[in-house]
Amino acid sequence: MGPGPSDVPRRILDAMARPTIGHLDPAFTDMMEQTKTLLRYAFQTGNKLTFPVSGPGSVGMETCFVNLVEPGDKVIVCINGVFGGRMLENVKRCGGVPVVVEDAWGRAVDAAKVEAAFAANPDTKILAFVHAETSTGAQSDAAALAAIARKHGALTLMDCVTSLGGTPVLIDAWGIDAAYSGSQKCLSCTPGLSPVTFSERAIEKVRARKTPVQSWFMDLNLVLGYWSGEGKRTYHHTAPINPLYGLHEALVMLAEEGIENAWARHRTMHEQLKTGLEKLGLSFVVPEDERLPQLNSVYLPADVDDAACRARLLSEFNLEIGAGLGVLAGKIWRIGLMGASASQKNVDYCLKALAAVLGK
Amino acid sequence: MGPGPSDVPRRILDAMARPTIGHLDPAFTDMMEQTKTLLRYAFQTGNKLTFPVSGPGSVGMETCFVNLVEPGDKVIVCINGVFGGRMLENVKRCGGVPVVVEDAWGRAVDAAKVEAAFAANPDTKILAFVHAETSTGAQSDAAALAAIARKHGALTLMDCVTSLGGTPVLIDAWGIDAAYSGSQKCLSCTPGLSPVTFSERAIEKVRARKTPVQSWFMDLNLVLGYWSGEGKRTYHHTAPINPLYGLHEALVMLAEEGIENAWARHRTMHEQLKTGLEKLGLSFVVPEDERLPQLNSVYLPADVDDAACRARLLSEFNLEIGAGLGVLAGKIWRIGLMGASASQKNVDYCLKALAAVLGK
Repeated sequence: MGPGPSDVPRRILDAMARPTIGHLDPAFTDMMEQTKTLLRYAFQTGNKLTFPVSGPGSVGMETCFVNLVEPGDKVIVCINGVFGGRMLENVKRCGGVPVVVEDAWGRAVDAAKVEAAFAANPDTKILAFVHAETSTGAQSDAAALAAIARKHGALTLMDCVTSLGGTPVLIDAWGIDAAYSGSQKCLSCTPGLSPVTFSERAIEKVRARKTPVQSWFMDLNLVLGYWSGEGKRTYHHTAPINPLYGLHEALVMLAEEGIENAWARHRTMHEQLKTGLEKLGLSFVVPEDERLPQLNSVYLPADVDDAACRARLLSEFNLEIGAGLGVLAGKIWRIGLMGASASQKNVDYCLKALAAVLGK
Repeated sequence: MGPGPSDVPRRILDAMARPTIGHLDPAFTDMMEQTKTLLRYAFQTGNKLTFPVSGPGSVGMETCFVNLVEPGDKVIVCINGVFGGRMLENVKRCGGVPVVVEDAWGRAVDAAKVEAAFAANPDTKILAFVHAETSTGAQSDAAALAAIARKHGALTLMDCVTSLGGTPVLIDAWGIDAAYSGSQKCLSCTPGLSPVTFSERAIEKVRARKTPVQSWFMDLNLVLGYWSGEGKRTYHHTAPINPLYGLHEALVMLAEEGIENAWARHRTMHEQLKTGLEKLGLSFVVPEDERLPQLNSVYLPADVDDAACRARLLSEFNLEIGAGLGVLAGKIWRIGLMGASASQKNVDYCLKALAAVLGK
C-alpha cells in the first residue's frame, strides 16, 4: 500500500507467465491492437496514437518531452512536487526554455499562476503539469489548465501516472494533447510499462520538427512503424512480450469492472481510510478538495520514528507504505489505495496495523 | 527459433509470476545485488557497474551512447548489419562525429579497416562495434578490435545482445569498456531488460563530461543512486519488479549449468543443425570461421516463397524462424539456437519442419 507498485492480482501475474511468443507473431500483434483499444478506454480518448511504451513511467515521460519539445521551445512547467521537478529536468535536457510555475508541495497547481505565466510568455509552445502528484497526493484541475493552454495556442502535456484508472482521466473531454502513465499504479499491473496517448495536434508538432528527436529509442516516427498497425509492421525493438500480456489482462479487468465503477471504488475506499486515519489522529497533507483518493499523504505524529515504524509494518505486518520524498522526506507517509489495493480488506488491515505500530 | 525471443523455460515464467513487492523492499534490493553478481559472471567481468537497464536492448544501447559520447566526440562505428547502423544513428543523435567502417553484411568486422580508420583519425575517442550481428549471424573478433582501440587510447563500446550466454563474451580479458545485451536471447528470459557493464575507464569518461547526459532516464549518474547499492538507495524510477525476478532466475540457471557448458551446448547444437540444413541444400550466409553458433542464417532456395513458408511453419508446426532484415529481407532465413532453444529436441524438430515445408 505504498505509492505503487500496487497489489497485482493473481490473474495478471498468471497472464505474465504465459509462454513467450514472437513480437511479430500474428497472435501477439492481434493482442497489441486489443491493448491499444483498451488503453483508449482507460484514457477516455479516441486518439489513434495510444500505446504502451516499453519502459517504466519515466520513459513514457521522456518520450513525451523528447518528441514534443524542440530546442528553443518555451515550455511552462508546473512544479508542486517531485514529478514536476522531473518534467523540468526533461525540458532542460531537450534544449527547451522552461518557465517554471511553482506551488507548495501538497497543493494543486494554481490555474491563476499558469494564466499569468502565459500572459508573460505568449510564445509558449507547451504547458506541462502533473495531474496527480505521486509525491504528495495532490490532484490538479487538468480541465482548467488544459483550457488555458488551448486559449493561448499551446499544447498540453500531462503526467497521469498515478491517476489513470483510479480517478477520472478524460483526455478528449479535457483537451489534453499528450499524456503518459504507468502500469503499476491504479491499473494494478507490474511496473515496467508506460501507456501514452497523443492527439493529432501533438502528432503534427512532432511531424513538423526541424531537428531530429534526440532519442533513437523514443522517436515516435520510428516506434510507430511497429505499433501503428498500418500496413506492414516493421521491427523497431523487441517488445516486452510477457509484461504486455500482463498489461492486456489488467486492462481487460478494468473494462470488466467498468472504469466509472473503478473510480467509485477508489473514492469509497478512500473515504473509509480517511475516517480511520483521522481517528488515529493523523492529519492529511493535502486540503480535502485537492486530494487524490488513491494516494493518502498524512503527517507523521511528532514523536514517531519514520523508518522504524515502516520497518515494523513491513516485517511484522507484511505491509508496505510509502515514505516522503524530497522536502517531505521523514515528514509524511504515503498510503496507496491503487487498483486492487483499493479494497475493504486492505483498508481494514492497514488501519489495524497502523494502530498497532502507533500504540493506539 | 527466430533471432529472439528464445524459448523461455517454465521455471523463468513462474518466477515472473511471483507476487510483486516494492522496488525498495529489502528482499527486492537483496535480489538486485545477487543479480549484479550473476551478471558479472555472465559478462566474465569484475566491473562494479554491471546491472540490467529497465528497458529492451535498444535502451541498453542508447544508455551506453548517451553517457559515453559527448557532442564533438569522434566515434569509429563498424557497420556490417542492421545493428551497426543503429549504433551510427545513436552517435549522430548524441552529437558525436561518426567515422564509419563498413563491411559486407554477413561478414565479420575487418580489423585492418579499423586500424586504418584509427590511423586516419588519431583523435578518436570511442570504437563501437557489434560482437554478434543479429541481422546476419556474423561474429567479429572482439578481442582484436578492442586491442586496436586500446592501442590508440580509445574506449571500446560493444553490442553483445545476441552473444551473451551463447558464445564467449569476455569483457575483462578482451578489455571492453562498455557493453550491452538483452534478456531474451541466449539468457532465455523474456524480452524487456538490457544487461550492461562499464569499466572504470568508461565511468571516468562519464564523470568527466562537460555537458549533461541528454537523457534523464538513462543518465548513469542518476540510475546509480538506485542500482549502486552504496549507502542509501535513492528512488530513480520504479524498477520492473517481475521481469527482474525472471532475469534473476535465468541467471541462476546459467550459473547452475556453468557458462562454459552453455557455450559448448550452443556449439554442439549448431553443428547438428548445420549438418541438417546442408543436407536440405541450404547454404550459410556467413563464412564458417565468422559464424555465430546461436544464429544460423541461410539463403532461401531460389524457388521458395519466404512469407508463405514462414507462415506455414508457424501455423502448421508452431515454429517461428526469422526473416531477413534490411538488404537481406526476403533473401535469408535466420534460425536461432539461443538459450533453452539450443536443444536436441528443437534442432530435430526444426529440421523436420523445414524438410516438410521445402518438400524434401
